Amino acid sequence: MTVSREVELEGHIIDSGMMQSCFGIIMDLGGSFSVQEFDIGRHKDEESYARMLVEADDEDQLQSIVHELHQHGVNPSDPKDATLVPAPDDQVVPHGFYSTTNHPTFIRHNGEWIEVEDMEMDCAVVVEDGEAHRASEQSNGDDEEPRDYPRAYTKVLNAIEEGDMVVTDETGIKVQPPERPRDSGGAFGFMQGGVSSERPSESTIRKIANAIKETKKEGGKVMAVCGPALIHSGAREDLARLVREGYVDMLSAGNGFAVHDIERDIYGTSLGMDTESLDHPRHGHKHHIYAISEVIREGGIEEAVDSGTIESGVMYECIENDRPFVLAGSIRDDGPLPDTITDAVEAQNAIREQAHEADMVLMLSTLLHSVAVGNCLPSTTRVVCVDINPATVTQLLDRGSAQAVGMVTDIGTFVPILAEQLLDEE
Amino acid sequence: MTVSREVELEGHIIDSGMMQSCFGIIMDLGGSFSVQEFDIGRHKDEESYARMLVEADDEDQLQSIVHELHQHGVNPSDPKDATLVPAPDDQVVPHGFYSTTNHPTFIRHNGEWIEVEDMEMDCAVVVEDGEAHRASEQSNGDDEEPRDYPRAYTKVLNAIEEGDMVVTDETGIKVQPPERPRDSGGAFGFMQGGVSSERPSESTIRKIANAIKETKKEGGKVMAVCGPALIHSGAREDLARLVREGYVDMLSAGNGFAVHDIERDIYGTSLGMDTESLDHPRHGHKHHIYAISEVIREGGIEEAVDSGTIESGVMYECIENDRPFVLAGSIRDDGPLPDTITDAVEAQNAIREQAHEADMVLMLSTLLHSVAVGNCLPSTTRVVCVDINPATVTQLLDRGSAQAVGMVTDIGTFVPILAEQLLDEE
Amino acid sequence: MTVSREVELEGHIIDSGMMQSCFGIIMDLGGSFSVQEFDIGRHKDEESYARMLVEADDEDQLQSIVHELHQHGVNPSDPKDATLVPAPDDQVVPHGFYSTTNHPTFIRHNGEWIEVEDMEMDCAVVVEDGEAHRASEQSNGDDEEPRDYPRAYTKVLNAIEEGDMVVTDETGIKVQPPERPRDSGGAFGFMQGGVSSERPSESTIRKIANAIKETKKEGGKVMAVCGPALIHSGAREDLARLVREGYVDMLSAGNGFAVHDIERDIYGTSLGMDTESLDHPRHGHKHHIYAISEVIREGGIEEAVDSGTIESGVMYECIENDRPFVLAGSIRDDGPLPDTITDAVEAQNAIREQAHEADMVLMLSTLLHSVAVGNCLPSTTRVVCVDINPATVTQLLDRGSAQAVGMVTDIGTFVPILAEQLLDEE
Amino acid sequence: MTVSREVELEGHIIDSGMMQSCFGIIMDLGGSFSVQEFDIGRHKDEESYARMLVEADDEDQLQSIVHELHQHGVNPSDPKDATLVPAPDDQVVPHGFYSTTNHPTFIRHNGEWIEVEDMEMDCAVVVEDGEAHRASEQSNGDDEEPRDYPRAYTKVLNAIEEGDMVVTDETGIKVQPPERPRDSGGAFGFMQGGVSSERPSESTIRKIANAIKETKKEGGKVMAVCGPALIHSGAREDLARLVREGYVDMLSAGNGFAVHDIERDIYGTSLGMDTESLDHPRHGHKHHIYAISEVIREGGIEEAVDSGTIESGVMYECIENDRPFVLAGSIRDDGPLPDTITDAVEAQNAIREQAHEADMVLMLSTLLHSVAVGNCLPSTTRVVCVDINPATVTQLLDRGSAQAVGMVTDIGTFVPILAEQLLDEE
Repeated sequence: MTVSREVELEGHIIDSGMMQSCFGIIMDLGGSFSVQEFDIGRHKDEESYARMLVEADDEDQLQSIVHELHQHGVNPSDPKDATLVPAPDDQVVPHGFYSTTNHPTFIRHNGEWIEVEDMEMDCAVVVEDGEAHRASEQSNGDDEEPRDYPRAYTKVLNAIEEGDMVVTDETGIKVQPPERPRDSGGAFGFMQGGVSSERPSESTIRKIANAIKETKKEGGKVMAVCGPALIHSGAREDLARLVREGYVDMLSAGNGFAVHDIERDIYGTSLGMDTESLDHPRHGHKHHIYAISEVIREGGIEEAVDSGTIESGVMYECIENDRPFVLAGSIRDDGPLPDTITDAVEAQNAIREQAHEADMVLMLSTLLHSVAVGNCLPSTTRVVCVDINPATVTQLLDRGSAQAVGMVTDIGTFVPILAEQLLDEE
Repeated sequence: MTVSREVELEGHIIDSGMMQSCFGIIMDLGGSFSVQEFDIGRHKDEESYARMLVEADDEDQLQSIVHELHQHGVNPSDPKDATLVPAPDDQVVPHGFYSTTNHPTFIRHNGEWIEVEDMEMDCAVVVEDGEAHRASEQSNGDDEEPRDYPRAYTKVLNAIEEGDMVVTDETGIKVQPPERPRDSGGAFGFMQGGVSSERPSESTIRKIANAIKETKKEGGKVMAVCGPALIHSGAREDLARLVREGYVDMLSAGNGFAVHDIERDIYGTSLGMDTESLDHPRHGHKHHIYAISEVIREGGIEEAVDSGTIESGVMYECIENDRPFVLAGSIRDDGPLPDTITDAVEAQNAIREQAHEADMVLMLSTLLHSVAVGNCLPSTTRVVCVDINPATVTQLLDRGSAQAVGMVTDIGTFVPILAEQLLDEE
Repeated sequence: MTVSREVELEGHIIDSGMMQSCFGIIMDLGGSFSVQEFDIGRHKDEESYARMLVEADDEDQLQSIVHELHQHGVNPSDPKDATLVPAPDDQVVPHGFYSTTNHPTFIRHNGEWIEVEDMEMDCAVVVEDGEAHRASEQSNGDDEEPRDYPRAYTKVLNAIEEGDMVVTDETGIKVQPPERPRDSGGAFGFMQGGVSSERPSESTIRKIANAIKETKKEGGKVMAVCGPALIHSGAREDLARLVREGYVDMLSAGNGFAVHDIERDIYGTSLGMDTESLDHPRHGHKHHIYAISEVIREGGIEEAVDSGTIESGVMYECIENDRPFVLAGSIRDDGPLPDTITDAVEAQNAIREQAHEADMVLMLSTLLHSVAVGNCLPSTTRVVCVDINPATVTQLLDRGSAQAVGMVTDIGTFVPILAEQLLDEE
Repeated sequence: MTVSREVELEGHIIDSGMMQSCFGIIMDLGGSFSVQEFDIGRHKDEESYARMLVEADDEDQLQSIVHELHQHGVNPSDPKDATLVPAPDDQVVPHGFYSTTNHPTFIRHNGEWIEVEDMEMDCAVVVEDGEAHRASEQSNGDDEEPRDYPRAYTKVLNAIEEGDMVVTDETGIKVQPPERPRDSGGAFGFMQGGVSSERPSESTIRKIANAIKETKKEGGKVMAVCGPALIHSGAREDLARLVREGYVDMLSAGNGFAVHDIERDIYGTSLGMDTESLDHPRHGHKHHIYAISEVIREGGIEEAVDSGTIESGVMYECIENDRPFVLAGSIRDDGPLPDTITDAVEAQNAIREQAHEADMVLMLSTLLHSVAVGNCLPSTTRVVCVDINPATVTQLLDRGSAQAVGMVTDIGTFVPILAEQLLDEE
């Protein structure tokens, strides 16, 4: 005797590979299927629709197939409500909790589909009916804008509170992997193959510049995630211009980036090398530790800008032009600066908040911070990864954003050419 | 009119390049010199001695030359006491404070040379006369073992307290860069050239195994700094054996390393792949988040070992055999585990404590944690860096340990061959 | 008015992605289609079959769609004979000649499908009816074994002779891309994802060893393509054992590989370093040029083995055990050895002959020679690529063999572990 | 009883590390020494002079020490004539022949020092007295310009002819390693440390542009060694401009470079990708093989330019502006083009001839051709190596040119910025 379930596929199911994955999953897991309806989009802009009956030997096998299918965007044609189980303790999720992807996700609750807020991967999903919230709102006089209830949103494991209603199992969950329509004409319809340094660099940078302009024109926000190599390679002044002129709205970096940016301002060096003359002044290797010491003395970067100790650079432009920044600490930091958030969980929360506001993210020569930001991004945010190490670009692109573009190039020539495209050719 | 100062060089000043650096510095900075005594060691075991008169146009130039010389181990033949200035505030060092190298260093105080304790680079040096300490000792009934006073020790910038007597300027400081005697016969007299993957791998691993045996025979402690690639590449069981058999005394790693080690125990996978059959079981990509959830539920790794949830692996052997470990958090962590220290400064302090106890450090496939540990090591600790990425090995060796050996190889074959050399060939 | 053509897809058309590519191509090129028959293999071992009507606006567009489809293995259901045009001159192909893929290919000639011999990519296909050949056979008394006619075979551009009947256009050509059946159970059903060093090394080597054993059991031939890094990294003795014991039947390498192998035998060094003690004997950097000089003096490698000048190593075992080798020259060679084929076209021909005999190819730490061999391989030959540089492995895997397995590891530990698996565990 | 010999060191013996190497060699090889005269240059522009007595236990040991010393530029203060032995056969050198470095070298013959012509490494040195040559000159009516005799010049092993008088042993040979005077002020007084991508890119390119301008101003010749990545990365048009405007006088490349340059001209693609729009036109992957076929049809690149088949690009500008080029074949070539020299020895000879004329060499994204060219360069030629892979840059710099500058950057942004510096800012 076999058991069966009807499922549906919608969208660019051929182009996106969804149909192929779906057939493969069923066969891999020992099931079989019959296609009951198959309406293929004949033109590149048309979406397709397929309805299939999935068959398996027993309920367990069927569950397992349906679980995998729905991770790939195949959803039951006759859905039920999601299963909610209260968290037994702070930071403790119920057994079998649903761990998220970074794709847009919907939870079925009381017969309605609710979109999950703040999508990011490897989180739990909490559903709130509103009563508890309204109660707490009254008591603490919280005056944030009223929300629609019920709502569903992601929570990282360490933010789970006892009693949170956590989605478990697979039932009542719909995932929509973004599609990569071929020949989309959009700014990001290029370069989605493998990662290689043998690509036309100037043409690619022009396309990235266009995507930034488009994002700004749509009122979107651009976030730059920056590693210290950006300073060492001499791209500091051009990035500072992009911050000043409003092409970069937010900055995410580490302690080292800010230190070397400030070292360059105060001492004219980066890692002890004069980035103009390429000389190594004596004492240069101590400049970064002196720079930290000066900022600690002032009390922080903003104070050091106000007092005139810092007079130029990326951090300076952030302060002067009100571009918010997050400096996340790490165990290899010297100092650190007073502005650096040393607690990893606290820093993740600050990064998360920024990431959720960003419409386009430039990941510039930093693996650690890019991964941290990438972890918090929904798969629908535009991402550009630039690094001279192909392995870094590959690792970042592999994290599954359908909107990610990678470029293996020299950050020290990339940023100046990008700035030229954005600022000098207007 | 010129000013002059007499300086001395001692040790393997030719082999170590000290003499060449010294002549170069004087000439670069516009000074001149006359060699007053030059006793060259004619055989490889003999040390040399040179006494020179350094001349400059004015006192400033002379200061600057003497500063650089003493960074390279050249010391005035007629020394004065070090200059001590009290720190004006917590975390604030006096202007012109002396920022350390990682070489053995001595401070002249009341006419005596005191060796600086806990040498590591980029720190301030604090000198304590004993009175303050003895006072505080009495009041808080502190019963730690009595120390000799006066003492000098390093403090990182964020640990400076108001009133600490901080060494400033260059006077009264002696630095001893370790020498690399050629053909030393010691375990580490090999492979100190550039970094390359085209080196005889098995012979090199045999030499590293011998150095570990030698360290253990001398009663020394071996510390392993481990990245998650070690687990993914299948080397987990062999590293666990090395921990169990006492060839690894301490562990320094990140949250991810422990998570994947535990994932392997509970689910048989690492990053979702079965490391034996190389299959990717369904749900595999969720295993790491489930593993974290299980440990949080238990309250920590030790509790999870005690309850039988974790039954094998590197973390298991650390718990069972009382090998202390530090798990340092980072912004890319999932979870994290309850054992992970999320604050970067707190984690650095825990790493620092471990590092100061280690006599030999194996840096295995992690750049972040290796740099963090390396920052806290004196230049006299034996260090082995293993990574498949030559850039990582180069970056670690560049940090200036004279005892560092680098190997560009596959951690997944390195650890098994090392374990075979240490355990099976006894 | 539209034009249309009926095409067929057969095989694992879903798993292999063929169906998806096919739909994509039609839509990209502005055509449309209707699926007339679709018989999906419900189980993983079943093949599928689909028949579709492709429609386009005009004949040009239809040609272009059908061209692309058939490159991906989609063939007209009503085929015509291939178009043959004589080559106008030596080395000159007719306009519009068909340039091959490396997949199995069939040419329709006189209503019959003939399989193209010696498949390799980027060649022309020549069809021979037999008369010309028989004529030339008689005249030159050529006594090679008689062949069946008509036959079709590949020719590289520089081998084309005036009058060769060259296949042009797309008509009458059938291509069969190999399929990657999921979960095939075969030795090569592993590791076909991206390239990474974070893979379980020992388990992977065990699988490769099993594939070699299987190839030998089936009476197949194993070819090793070797770079000099293999010698420098200390793997020479273990490769020599594999040659002696018959696990390597043929060798393809460059002048440098043989020189360093022989240097090791005569002087005990490789690139001047003693691979056991890791010392650099004085004069070591001249050893390779001396080794070349000695072999030139003897007249060649075989003569040097016969005279006792060479007494061990990979080249020695090749001579002693009659394993044929090709040493291909390059512009960076010293010497070269008398055995090295300095003409690139002649060397390609020698490599081509070897490659066509191989059933399994081990590409060990050489990009240049691996690409040269890979260019001559049909897509059905098993290929293993091993290199410590991920970019090299990626580049080799990208050349499109469906049977290729890549491993990012240290050749100096890979070969010893492989030899242990094959020789010591019997 | 000991034996001894007096040796001399001259030049920047401290700065260049010569003195340190020299002391180290003597001690390593078990000898001892006394410094008899030591005149240290007190200022950076002054040269130093030292005279030492080297002592050893026996003549063998002394020989061995003196051999090593003279490889490092230390020469006997009482020199004898070089030992000349006739080559016993074509391509066969006498036992104990002297194998060259790439440093300027002098041979003592009849009491006079003769500078060795055409210095390159790993060659034999042949001394000619003039009689033989004059005889052959007369017989064949050779009208090349008369030379001074005696002369000494390098010969690669395969060019040795029976009877050539080959220098053997170490006697009567003087080597002058170039010195790296600190703070030289010259165009190449920068960036001689390790290789890293974290360097100020634009400033470095400006310095390279200045060095090219200086070379041209001095009447020197600039040679570009180019890999196909240059075309793929979109730098073709800017390199073509540099050829046209006379900043590149000679070109050395492989078949692939020329093929992709011509593919771009005829089909608008490189490796099948449109380098402007980044699209992949259908059939694109066949364009390179079609391009080869077109050039073969014409008979060569010059013919294809003359007939109007090729109308732009690097090869086009070479033909139009009479910039000589060498295309060296390799076993991975398709085609090859009729212009490609397929024999490695013949190609080396063509490269050698070019290399000896070059005053500055730009090595642009090719390891194979750069090594081949580098092998033929004396250590006094200015060399710039640019590649995105740090391992390639390191390997090229390691070959020992004192004038080499390495840069890890994207060739696709490097060439446009260089062209801008040279052409647009005049």
